[in-house]
Amino acid sequence: MQPESCERRHGKAIRWTKSDASHLEVATMRIGIVGSGRMGGGLGRLWAHAGHEVMFSDVRGLEEMRALAEEVGHGARAGSIRETAAWCDIVLLATHWAQCKSALEECGSLEGKILIDIINPVKPDFSDLEFGFTTSASEEIARLVPQARVVKALNTIPSPVLALEGCRVAGQKVSGFYCGDDGAAKQVVAQLVADAGFDPVDCGPLSSARYLEALGMLLIRIVVTLKASPEIAFSLVRKVE
Amino acid sequence: MQPESCERRHGKAIRWTKSDASHLEVATMRIGIVGSGRMGGGLGRLWAHAGHEVMFSDVRGLEEMRALAEEVGHGARAGSIRETAAWCDIVLLATHWAQCKSALEECGSLEGKILIDIINPVKPDFSDLEFGFTTSASEEIARLVPQARVVKALNTIPSPVLALEGCRVAGQKVSGFYCGDDGAAKQVVAQLVADAGFDPVDCGPLSSARYLEALGMLLIRIVVTLKASPEIAFSLVRKVE
Repeated sequence: MQPESCERRHGKAIRWTKSDASHLEVATMRIGIVGSGRMGGGLGRLWAHAGHEVMFSDVRGLEEMRALAEEVGHGARAGSIRETAAWCDIVLLATHWAQCKSALEECGSLEGKILIDIINPVKPDFSDLEFGFTTSASEEIARLVPQARVVKALNTIPSPVLALEGCRVAGQKVSGFYCGDDGAAKQVVAQLVADAGFDPVDCGPLSSARYLEALGMLLIRIVVTLKASPEIAFSLVRKVE
Repeated sequence: MQPESCERRHGKAIRWTKSDASHLEVATMRIGIVGSGRMGGGLGRLWAHAGHEVMFSDVRGLEEMRALAEEVGHGARAGSIRETAAWCDIVLLATHWAQCKSALEECGSLEGKILIDIINPVKPDFSDLEFGFTTSASEEIARLVPQARVVKALNTIPSPVLALEGCRVAGQKVSGFYCGDDGAAKQVVAQLVADAGFDPVDCGPLSSARYLEALGMLLIRIVVTLKASPEIAFSLVRKVE
């Protein structure tokens, strides 16, 4: 099941939370970006522009984050990793794999929060993944922060695509794949994937991250092989039913 | 580098072989299908209709293969696995993973022949791959028949897509991913991928089969999760340059 298009109240995107079986309550989403590089910064910008509340953080320190927040506008703010994690409902974890564990330690408690992981655990030379098949970055993260609701998403989008009009490549909408074991968290993430401009595609349980991270790595191989522009992405083509 | 659109002579598709550095010699391609189920049968049909010479074989035995060949027409023929492998220039290996080793033994020598492997080594219950990350079906096959020129291709195409007009899904062309370590063999396979109706995408060395087989598995997960029609496929969206 995928949520319908995002409702908005006073120009703000709204979150759907189940208050009972039939009714959906709404609230603004607070998204904390942990790791505000090209991917984290780019997604935060898209979500801020879509009406969400966004806070940027990074090991690079507060001054740089303040400049980013000011440049993004739309009420975006900056904080330390600890402040950002405490403030938000949803953490976007967008560090390199090597920095992921220490960033999570800096976050403090993430109890009950949705954690969107976009990490591809690639080796420093980009030749391969660090691990796969029997585990994934997402599953390792879920073990590190078992109290968070981990959803893998958007790890197959090259950062240059975030800067394209409507995130479209050659005029075409591209797929935002996601997976996880928490159905309600996945529904919220599907909405954020759509708000960023992508076609949300549910890939099943969190263990599908093994295959999604492989897809992220495949895209790197294709860019290297074809010496292609990184303005490239996968789209799931399906019959309109 | 990808070959240009297929040239044809007397209605036959032609193969490009390097006779010297600058000139391309042409010949009809003889494709032997080893494992003529829904994928092997479907691809053989497409290639026969595109003007290639095709022979069908399978453990199911000769009578069924003769009926298939007659139904396909366009000069398609039937043979034992051994006859088919001896006759062809290019083997399409399209058995299940569990039958792959015995089928290769039945083939006899494949010295110098191109072997297109479309296998996803999925578990019998389709829940996961049998192996991955440190190896792939393609790399295992290359170890079993080191004298063949193994190219992974078309393993991300669900068989129902082969029956669609021009193999298009919702009117859109879909990607035919391939990888391998033999550049000349890959060029021939890219042409066959295009002749079948797909957009050929070079994914680099044979070890990329690890990621392509993961992509095949991801598609199975998506079909299961979304309870989607298997008339579904991946397309690599890229800027037209």
